[in-house]
Amino acid sequence: VTKSGASAAAIEKGNYRHFMQKEIFEQPTVVAQTLRSYVRQLERTVALPQIDFDITSINRVTIVACGTSFYAGMVAKYWFEMFARVPVDIDVASEFRYRDPVLEPGGLALFISQSGETADTLAALRHCKEAGQTIAVVVNVPTSSMAREADLLLPTHAGPEIGVASTKAFTCQLAVLAALAAHFAVKKGRLSKDEERAIVDHLLEAPACLNAALDHDDDIAQMAHLIAPARDVLYLGRGPDYPLAMEGALKLKEISYIHAEGYASGEMKHGPIALIDDHVPVVVLAPSGPLFEKTVSNMQEVRARGGKIVLISDAEGIAEAGEGCMATIEMPKVHPLIAPLVYAVPVQLLAYHVACAKGTDVDQPRNLAKSVTVE
Amino acid sequence: VTKSGASAAAIEKGNYRHFMQKEIFEQPTVVAQTLRSYVRQLERTVALPQIDFDITSINRVTIVACGTSFYAGMVAKYWFEMFARVPVDIDVASEFRYRDPVLEPGGLALFISQSGETADTLAALRHCKEAGQTIAVVVNVPTSSMAREADLLLPTHAGPEIGVASTKAFTCQLAVLAALAAHFAVKKGRLSKDEERAIVDHLLEAPACLNAALDHDDDIAQMAHLIAPARDVLYLGRGPDYPLAMEGALKLKEISYIHAEGYASGEMKHGPIALIDDHVPVVVLAPSGPLFEKTVSNMQEVRARGGKIVLISDAEGIAEAGEGCMATIEMPKVHPLIAPLVYAVPVQLLAYHVACAKGTDVDQPRNLAKSVTVE
Repeated sequence: VTKSGASAAAIEKGNYRHFMQKEIFEQPTVVAQTLRSYVRQLERTVALPQIDFDITSINRVTIVACGTSFYAGMVAKYWFEMFARVPVDIDVASEFRYRDPVLEPGGLALFISQSGETADTLAALRHCKEAGQTIAVVVNVPTSSMAREADLLLPTHAGPEIGVASTKAFTCQLAVLAALAAHFAVKKGRLSKDEERAIVDHLLEAPACLNAALDHDDDIAQMAHLIAPARDVLYLGRGPDYPLAMEGALKLKEISYIHAEGYASGEMKHGPIALIDDHVPVVVLAPSGPLFEKTVSNMQEVRARGGKIVLISDAEGIAEAGEGCMATIEMPKVHPLIAPLVYAVPVQLLAYHVACAKGTDVDQPRNLAKSVTVE
Repeated sequence: VTKSGASAAAIEKGNYRHFMQKEIFEQPTVVAQTLRSYVRQLERTVALPQIDFDITSINRVTIVACGTSFYAGMVAKYWFEMFARVPVDIDVASEFRYRDPVLEPGGLALFISQSGETADTLAALRHCKEAGQTIAVVVNVPTSSMAREADLLLPTHAGPEIGVASTKAFTCQLAVLAALAAHFAVKKGRLSKDEERAIVDHLLEAPACLNAALDHDDDIAQMAHLIAPARDVLYLGRGPDYPLAMEGALKLKEISYIHAEGYASGEMKHGPIALIDDHVPVVVLAPSGPLFEKTVSNMQEVRARGGKIVLISDAEGIAEAGEGCMATIEMPKVHPLIAPLVYAVPVQLLAYHVACAKGTDVDQPRNLAKSVTVE
């Protein structure tokens, strides 16, 4: 396990070809070191680093972020509502700050940003502070403006992220948000002591599951040539996998310049299915479970129109629906609170290997800046 | 002014080449006939058709819909919050029904559907009814399942819509939602009598403004060849124009099979800008006003990367930022409560003429059904 912080070793590429690749492979380590601040391993309880903060009075959460951090926030919305029954509003920062949102007293406003300096997010934070909201931030830079202005600082310990396309910061954000969802659920009386211990065990399994996902690096590199020639790719998911579909599409856009778009699986019939032909690969993120059957019927619709599918699922899902897919990627079977962390890995690796196959500048994609500090 | 209802005349194409074209041109008429149920012209007040419904106790609105109706709902979220200060949650039906959303007592759940039969939306309606929410529906078929199961029926009077890609149903939905937003605002004491009268005047101007927008049909037909060769198109907007950007992209996807994607203008820097080169036209929806300058800076970022812009704005906006655009489309200067209705017209016409230029089957696009009554 490496130490956090901008040490010289942490900002060299080592044996990796790109920073992005290195950062993808650091995820088991940095997610483990992030979770260490949010889980008491001996007691098997979740706890916030700032233990004097009383979360029980919070009845509504407003999440604001941009880009990849926004998709981490979308996953958190599912978790907070599912586990803690706390309703969540979410908006992209550039929209939130100008739409004069209705903010009810007693709300928690939660901002997510790798740098802690994203201009629109910081402006939204200040707007919420003036409106009397309690301010929480999930940031990777503990000395950032957002960290300084927060009531509740929830740091990620991803270490410096150099690749412009965010990877390890995203999974560390998800780790913090999963722990926060569990903490909320405990404090709101929605989880028994036993259930809390089970959740903690699942969270602590995340690094091993991330390693299992990384074991598919070679397979994914082998299938990159199936996606690299595409001009357009769709990503589909349901529930917490819907934001992951959007994040997967964003990764591919950012570094391979392929026009990828993420959709809620159930929305495909309402328009985007018109795009489907044998030139548009469809990446489906679908762990087995109660909604899997719905997604299988969406896959059949894609296939009936000549669409080629990459199915990312667990062994059970692949056994049920893998036949006839262009490719499958098998993930370990995991708890819903860590599935988004684990499923982030194959979409990152797929974007990475497709970009390598296309020969783009992976760490410095065209037109993009690492931290967007202008509006 | 024509009568509503499925008369023989209403389901023939007349002098139009396609039903979609006919339905686009019917919008001034059907929006006027829809508004007639929601506005008392002599008193210059807004009123719901079902006048015994007391809306004052509603403190939160949950909007659920699919496809184009979902984008009408997104516009409504901006309006309800801006004019009535009533907070709004919104979700696509296929996600809403499976995420076990937190529904607070006293909420209004609002469902939007042309057919009133959309399977996922109907299932979401029934879920909300069981959870004790008050049920309102905006539907075009008053005998539909949703209409029958609603507490508050808010019909659109668009007449039968034959084209698979929804056009006149969308603007009629917006007309109902604008009147509902104004009614909410009056009942919540956020609009004075004078302000209400001014709003009613603006609503009643909508049909004339839609006609002014339709006057650009020839110009838009002329510029279709600029978009038709593109494989990918981005649509950008801020505030209520952000959902319109998504709707514009959906229309182009549905009938021209070009991969178009709508984005909040301020999110472009967080990823999609990597796609921009001189092969990716960018359609910008931006009425002049306080946010126009922000959008101009987004346009400059696009232009700096070789991107070609189609700017849809009013005379003032085009005077300020039209130079250097590949094309501009001038809309009348209108109140924010009717701008989305008016700006819907050029994106519909653009999609229509691009599809005609490509020779696709406009009224029966591949893979799509008019009413999605399966999950």
